[in-house]
Amino acid sequence: MDHAIRKNLQDCFVQQPLMRTLGAIVGSVKDGEVVIELPFHEKLTQHHGFFHAGVITTIMDNACGGAALSQMPANATVLTVEYKVNFLSPAKGDKLIARGKVLKSGRALTVCQGEVHVVLDGEEKLVATMLATMMCREMPGSSAE
Amino acid sequence: MDHAIRKNLQDCFVQQPLMRTLGAIVGSVKDGEVVIELPFHEKLTQHHGFFHAGVITTIMDNACGGAALSQMPANATVLTVEYKVNFLSPAKGDKLIARGKVLKSGRALTVCQGEVHVVLDGEEKLVATMLATMMCREMPGSSAE
Amino acid sequence: MDHAIRKNLQDCFVQQPLMRTLGAIVGSVKDGEVVIELPFHEKLTQHHGFFHAGVITTIMDNACGGAALSQMPANATVLTVEYKVNFLSPAKGDKLIARGKVLKSGRALTVCQGEVHVVLDGEEKLVATMLATMMCREMPGSSAE
Amino acid sequence: MDHAIRKNLQDCFVQQPLMRTLGAIVGSVKDGEVVIELPFHEKLTQHHGFFHAGVITTIMDNACGGAALSQMPANATVLTVEYKVNFLSPAKGDKLIARGKVLKSGRALTVCQGEVHVVLDGEEKLVATMLATMMCREMPGSSAE
Repeated sequence: MDHAIRKNLQDCFVQQPLMRTLGAIVGSVKDGEVVIELPFHEKLTQHHGFFHAGVITTIMDNACGGAALSQMPANATVLTVEYKVNFLSPAKGDKLIARGKVLKSGRALTVCQGEVHVVLDGEEKLVATMLATMMCREMPGSSAE
Repeated sequence: MDHAIRKNLQDCFVQQPLMRTLGAIVGSVKDGEVVIELPFHEKLTQHHGFFHAGVITTIMDNACGGAALSQMPANATVLTVEYKVNFLSPAKGDKLIARGKVLKSGRALTVCQGEVHVVLDGEEKLVATMLATMMCREMPGSSAE
Repeated sequence: MDHAIRKNLQDCFVQQPLMRTLGAIVGSVKDGEVVIELPFHEKLTQHHGFFHAGVITTIMDNACGGAALSQMPANATVLTVEYKVNFLSPAKGDKLIARGKVLKSGRALTVCQGEVHVVLDGEEKLVATMLATMMCREMPGSSAE
Repeated sequence: MDHAIRKNLQDCFVQQPLMRTLGAIVGSVKDGEVVIELPFHEKLTQHHGFFHAGVITTIMDNACGGAALSQMPANATVLTVEYKVNFLSPAKGDKLIARGKVLKSGRALTVCQGEVHVVLDGEEKLVATMLATMMCREMPGSSAE
């Protein structure tokens, strides 16, 4: 991946205060694929003590957005047009791992697929799956420098 | 609405640590309709300084879940099966208002519609719309008392 | 609505062979809102003898696409980016009525909401609801004439 | 796969008049995975002469429903709760191939993933992807015989 693109991508995550609020960290960044991890904290839970669906969605959205951004020009920003999430199992465990990857990259729109696994006693279990549409917007005033 | 149902519904929200983490408050609770509000805070934002899509989704999910729960037995708990969200405008403003309402209530599944408006300078603007499927699960060990 | 836009919209429906295959007819066309009707025929059914989910989706997609197209330039064509449908009741009846309307119209993308009712013994019942994203593509070689 | 389950699955497809109307045929049936094929016919097209989105959705829905049914009891019937489809490329070609597979099978609900490829000059291209929720309903009066 181009250095300017990687810098743009990391700026994008670093500039997201909500990621710090949740405690999410970027696991890995490849061309068309981004991984985000989120350690368990009681503040992230719903009424049964598991990770809240909103938290699962948030990091999966960011993993997909990052994957889309990794294939856009270095002065681009990414907007979430829409997503759909199915929740498959209760998110009970020590850590969430969200993986976003590009299914189809177009000029204006990028379609991504996301998955979140929860890690419990060293084993991963699939808890949610996402299908998302991302939009590329090039920033007129910015440059890759 | 039955007293026991209302109590169940409020317990459900009060017992959600993530709602406190975000600063969300229950605006109103009616039969089949729940409103949740969330004042702006920098910790809730994405890279442009607006409310993050994940935060918008979280409170809309809870408003829909609450609306579904308001029509379930008093010993029931509600699970989000899936949802789909379209983002219509940037969520730039002082406060989010999420409204969830029941479209169709079945024995096992309840379909809900959610909307989030952002309030800026006293005016509401629609920022996102949700279509969600909720599942009722009766808790064997619990009672309405 | 502009005459050229209305003509474009009707050309778009008339030029769709699948609509003739199903027997669907345009009920009404307004600015941002299109109604399509489909009389019952045994050839349109699933294994219980009701209208098939795919047929319900098809006319709702076209009603939403038509609604989006009604607010686009007269030389535009409309593409379905994605949709999500919830099925609320069995579609048992004499006729389907699909209503599509524009929720938010943007430069590139239009978000639409669709509903399908079934008519049985003169009464309408909601059978499905759609949330759809449509894309406008202007046709370089064509003109409003 | 159990003989009674396979019989139930094939009865379900054979009993769907819409599949005959479209000309769809079952390609293969395995445990948790069903393939449906649909040869091109002008009657299935939209305004650009390609396979209509509604047709793509219909066979993908049936492939997912069949995949879900393959893991249900032999006296069960399958209902589509909801689905979401992203359209990735124009469906221009000689044949559609829809593949549905089970992502997660639960007692009441089964989550499936579907894909449709179009075949043009012997090459497959991905045209759409689906995420669907199916519901199992056991038929009280029926038996596996």
